[in-house]
Amino acid sequence: MKKFINAPDDVVREALAGVAAAHSGLRVDLENQIVVRTDAPRSGKVGLISGGGSGHEPLHGGFVGAGMLDAAAPGEVFTSPVPDQILAATKAVDGGAGVVHIVKNYTGDVMNFQMAAELAGDDGVTVETVLVDDDVAVEDSTWTAGRRGTGATLFVEKIAGALAEEGGSVQDVAAIGRRVNEASGSFAVALTACTTPAAGKPGFDLPEDEMEVGVGIHGEPGRRREKLQPAKQIAATAVESILAAKPMERGDRAIVMVNGLGGTPLIELYLLYGHVSALLDEAGVQIVHNLVGNYVTSLDMAGMSVTILKADDEMIRLWEAPVNTPGLRWGA
Amino acid sequence: MKKFINAPDDVVREALAGVAAAHSGLRVDLENQIVVRTDAPRSGKVGLISGGGSGHEPLHGGFVGAGMLDAAAPGEVFTSPVPDQILAATKAVDGGAGVVHIVKNYTGDVMNFQMAAELAGDDGVTVETVLVDDDVAVEDSTWTAGRRGTGATLFVEKIAGALAEEGGSVQDVAAIGRRVNEASGSFAVALTACTTPAAGKPGFDLPEDEMEVGVGIHGEPGRRREKLQPAKQIAATAVESILAAKPMERGDRAIVMVNGLGGTPLIELYLLYGHVSALLDEAGVQIVHNLVGNYVTSLDMAGMSVTILKADDEMIRLWEAPVNTPGLRWGA
Repeated sequence: MKKFINAPDDVVREALAGVAAAHSGLRVDLENQIVVRTDAPRSGKVGLISGGGSGHEPLHGGFVGAGMLDAAAPGEVFTSPVPDQILAATKAVDGGAGVVHIVKNYTGDVMNFQMAAELAGDDGVTVETVLVDDDVAVEDSTWTAGRRGTGATLFVEKIAGALAEEGGSVQDVAAIGRRVNEASGSFAVALTACTTPAAGKPGFDLPEDEMEVGVGIHGEPGRRREKLQPAKQIAATAVESILAAKPMERGDRAIVMVNGLGGTPLIELYLLYGHVSALLDEAGVQIVHNLVGNYVTSLDMAGMSVTILKADDEMIRLWEAPVNTPGLRWGA
Repeated sequence: MKKFINAPDDVVREALAGVAAAHSGLRVDLENQIVVRTDAPRSGKVGLISGGGSGHEPLHGGFVGAGMLDAAAPGEVFTSPVPDQILAATKAVDGGAGVVHIVKNYTGDVMNFQMAAELAGDDGVTVETVLVDDDVAVEDSTWTAGRRGTGATLFVEKIAGALAEEGGSVQDVAAIGRRVNEASGSFAVALTACTTPAAGKPGFDLPEDEMEVGVGIHGEPGRRREKLQPAKQIAATAVESILAAKPMERGDRAIVMVNGLGGTPLIELYLLYGHVSALLDEAGVQIVHNLVGNYVTSLDMAGMSVTILKADDEMIRLWEAPVNTPGLRWGA
């Protein structure tokens, strides 16, 4: 296994120590293993938290900051955070206006966030949950009942985060998060497996001339394995799959992400974006904003995902609101 | 070869088409193969350009925008841009106050930028050149006489770009660029080779338990090949090598980048940053700003580089100035 690590068991803790050293706007609680905005909790502001297995950086810790998350609870690599961790994050950001949990639809995550929400409720904290299940590739999967939560998580965190920042209620923040999830679709293709520090070898074998179409962000099998296609064809497969599940009409507006899974260089992501953009243009869909880069990754997996959000006026306005996090940053 | 491409010869052109589709603040001239700020040339402002082989994205095209470069001239993958291309970029940003060329020290780049500078001079454009040669690993290399230009290129582009933005003269902009280069050192370690689209296979063999210490950003050999070490030891090798070549004293301030070479996930870069930060702390050096991520890459190479700039007041002030590019963005 070729990784810049010291010992597999120490990877998450040591990476969090690095996050703490790098970002003075974040408070990293190494004991509870949570990443919190230094200004949290803010009285009267809805707290927004997310979490899940590590290995998807910058998701989620990299999206903690003004205009996005108030805290993140990173589990071990590809492992759900435990309820106590999520509870600690919930309490750390509770300013009396309630807390929204953004949860990717994986069985362990759902269960542990639910348990934490109940514990927080016992302590008098109102918790609303937004379940993200945007991956249109498969209906059920290795670690999910229903669709997997992937790239749209970033969209939910950004847009719900902006509404929380401007004073939205816990119900409204959760509601826009759910609407964003509902209006989003994602589709991923892997060229290689990823290697977790604990396993030390690739999670599956993928022959030199094949790709995994509809892969999950932990390397879960997708729709099919097939011969490697040209990028233009891969982009078409992704866009068509998303639009089949989440139809759009001519004149609709979209926020689009072409996301690298960790081991794919930016030059390929831009090449893909050119094709995705052209395909949506042909479909009469106007891309109002885009992201091209590594945002929701799968360790060192070579691969990419496309996420398309059919955006309305409110979503676009909230997308454009200022954000200041390690992974996403722009001004007014 | 597993890449999201259509044909090896079309990669750079198609990726630039994607850049054009993604970034409305950039004008991509596909004929001349240059990326230009839409508001260039600006009368009275020093134009700042850079360029070099593609495959290092976001360098350079991703650093075109307010507060940084006015244009970039990307060559084919790992191939210098041609003089006509550089000349076109120079003319596109010439607002009458002169143009600064930021050139990484590779023989082909140096030659072609020099030729373009002479052609621009014939047309009455004052050109100053800043040669970047920050890589402390080796004195001469496969494609260089003298040290290679790597990570510090970003520091030069940011800091000189800020001075150009606030109205510095062509001499002053070049002078601060040269000072930044002189005060910077970089050191890289590769865990794997990268694969160019044209070659279709890794540029060199690196056994499963070895790393290339002091590698160049095209996979050029470094100081030595040795058994893979723990991340803490690799961070120490990098920091010690840089400080040996560019000594710093207790109380000095630094801007530090832990940079991924393309195939290394962010979780490992943060883990490394934690160790780099601790080592500098022990040396009494204060890190005033940092970057952790993929900024100066080598296609899909698994690896990382550390760059340390011994920063003075002016450099820190210019680093903190607003920047708005696809690859680097922050407010005032």
